Amino acid sequence: MRVFGKPYRTIWPSEKDNATIHIIDQRHLPHRFVVEELRTVSEVCTAIREMHVRGAGLIGATAGFGMHLAALAAPEHDFAGFMRKAADDLVRTRPTASNLAWAVKRQLEAITQETTLAAQRAKAFAVACEIADEDAEFCRRIGEHGKGIIAELSRRKNGGVVNILTHCNAGWLAFVDYGSATAPIYAAHAEGIKVHVWVDETRPWLQGAKLTAWELKEEGVAHTLIADNTGGHLMQHGMVDMVIVGTDRTTRCGDVANKIGTYLKALAAHDNGVPFYVALPSSTFDWGIRDGLSEIPIEQRSGEEITHIRGLNEAAEMTTIAIAPPATPCANYGFDVTPARLITGLISERGVMQASEGDILRLYPEQK
Amino acid sequence: MRVFGKPYRTIWPSEKDNATIHIIDQRHLPHRFVVEELRTVSEVCTAIREMHVRGAGLIGATAGFGMHLAALAAPEHDFAGFMRKAADDLVRTRPTASNLAWAVKRQLEAITQETTLAAQRAKAFAVACEIADEDAEFCRRIGEHGKGIIAELSRRKNGGVVNILTHCNAGWLAFVDYGSATAPIYAAHAEGIKVHVWVDETRPWLQGAKLTAWELKEEGVAHTLIADNTGGHLMQHGMVDMVIVGTDRTTRCGDVANKIGTYLKALAAHDNGVPFYVALPSSTFDWGIRDGLSEIPIEQRSGEEITHIRGLNEAAEMTTIAIAPPATPCANYGFDVTPARLITGLISERGVMQASEGDILRLYPEQK
Repeated sequence: MRVFGKPYRTIWPSEKDNATIHIIDQRHLPHRFVVEELRTVSEVCTAIREMHVRGAGLIGATAGFGMHLAALAAPEHDFAGFMRKAADDLVRTRPTASNLAWAVKRQLEAITQETTLAAQRAKAFAVACEIADEDAEFCRRIGEHGKGIIAELSRRKNGGVVNILTHCNAGWLAFVDYGSATAPIYAAHAEGIKVHVWVDETRPWLQGAKLTAWELKEEGVAHTLIADNTGGHLMQHGMVDMVIVGTDRTTRCGDVANKIGTYLKALAAHDNGVPFYVALPSSTFDWGIRDGLSEIPIEQRSGEEITHIRGLNEAAEMTTIAIAPPATPCANYGFDVTPARLITGLISERGVMQASEGDILRLYPEQK
Repeated sequence: MRVFGKPYRTIWPSEKDNATIHIIDQRHLPHRFVVEELRTVSEVCTAIREMHVRGAGLIGATAGFGMHLAALAAPEHDFAGFMRKAADDLVRTRPTASNLAWAVKRQLEAITQETTLAAQRAKAFAVACEIADEDAEFCRRIGEHGKGIIAELSRRKNGGVVNILTHCNAGWLAFVDYGSATAPIYAAHAEGIKVHVWVDETRPWLQGAKLTAWELKEEGVAHTLIADNTGGHLMQHGMVDMVIVGTDRTTRCGDVANKIGTYLKALAAHDNGVPFYVALPSSTFDWGIRDGLSEIPIEQRSGEEITHIRGLNEAAEMTTIAIAPPATPCANYGFDVTPARLITGLISERGVMQASEGDILRLYPEQK
């Protein structure tokens, strides 16, 4: 998608040298557009853990390139051992995201099929690029499938503005391109359907205020930033036509782990008859689990993300402020689980399905 | 309640001179404890509008003292006109709060009964003190009534910790003393019942992080600060035994307008079988209305409260930071309405009642 009018992906290998991977260091957005270079798997782990990059698809793609950098550094006499350690280190960086383990496993399986060091390295780079390209392509298809839902709402409103609420950033910054939740919005917008997005600011990390508002602005999509507390009120007053969110892990029965607070919006949508959609490339399915509440591990992060906020001060310098009394105890759960019963539909690269095992397997029969 | 171990109210007239009213300027909490002096009704309007003071009961008490300061300044030849204008100015400062209009009306009615300027002034001061004392006494009684509910939960847990979630600050800082939602917590704590409070930080203004966390700390009550998005997850996992919130306006049928986001927590409590209580002195009842969603005006505030946050920088200076792209459009609704069907009970100075017209009128038969 566009930044200052120029198309970007969120991650790309250097043109002259595939030993360098470029990412957008999202911690500086929306105030500064900083491109960071990653050269080692340890730098990749830091980038994921410290959220230079974040979001379901982008975490997976970054881990894919992390395995590629590991392959470049792995010694011939202990290639397998080195790669296994790199894989473990990468998977441990964020416990909830499904794509992370998925991308690392895909790399390990692919590399194992090669026998020479050169072939293993070539394969790791090819698979990393493949994961990234596939992520972008899957998001593009999610956009096409989801666009139909928005178009239908637009028809029902006689071409009036379709108001869409989203939580967190499941935008192109969370993937390699297009985004999951935003892909249908961008696709509808590109076709001239009038859309307006209610952007949940998404405490504590403020992905909505910092990233979603920024990327919608860069693409020229109308939007309004709101506190996370606001969505229920808007839905009670008919100001939301649909909700679209992303997911970090989805069970085979359609329970969805997404950014903390998603469950509250799903309850409000349900209470007010507002359709609630979850957009996802199939890499976020965890086919081995059924019950999200008991089976998905929920990441707990530092309390400092709650007691301190980073932003731009009046002198335009990045600065951190404290908003709570010193040493206030905090709990910082990164995700919550929205049960399938509250979800109107899932939108994946293969189409729109109900959040039920039967309908999910209709589109993914190979997982039966 | 205590600040640095010393008992305080949130508003009090100067000991030597009733032409000066002291308030705690809550904008500086929790970083600085600043007492402000108010001498004119215009200063009082600013203090309410700009949220030096906030919270249902304290807004009412401050308006009561505002009418007293107006009476001191009102010229004999146009006493009634001056007072009517002061009343209008005060009521306009915050549109949702019920106590504001209630306190101003009570003052106007009382003053009208007097005929001499001296008697009118004396009456205005007496009524202002009466409103403040009554607010404190009503909150104390709410504490006594609500304590029984917490004690019962404690018994069911065999004396284990009772986990209580609260939203915003309906603490003593929102009233003259004790608070509404916090009064039962303070009363239970004082009796040695083990309680722990989940404090919603309460965006955008952060009353939870800045005020509730601070006052619970000063009173020595165990608490944990959370992002507003977190409560649903905690309830799904059995980590919340009850919810208590305050209210800014309550209909005769039991619908409740409280800080934006309250409705989302009520939905989560309902979905997880967690009791959801609303604590209120009867001054927050608006006896003339039935349906909260259609009849309670919802205040909209500046978008800057969302795009900018104030706190203490690393050099311990108060500073404001931007967290969103420049000129991001915002919507900032101050309150939402929780329908009576989601409320387990109301706790007022007269006791505990169901959120229904019949049961409310059982305790307030004079409103039939």
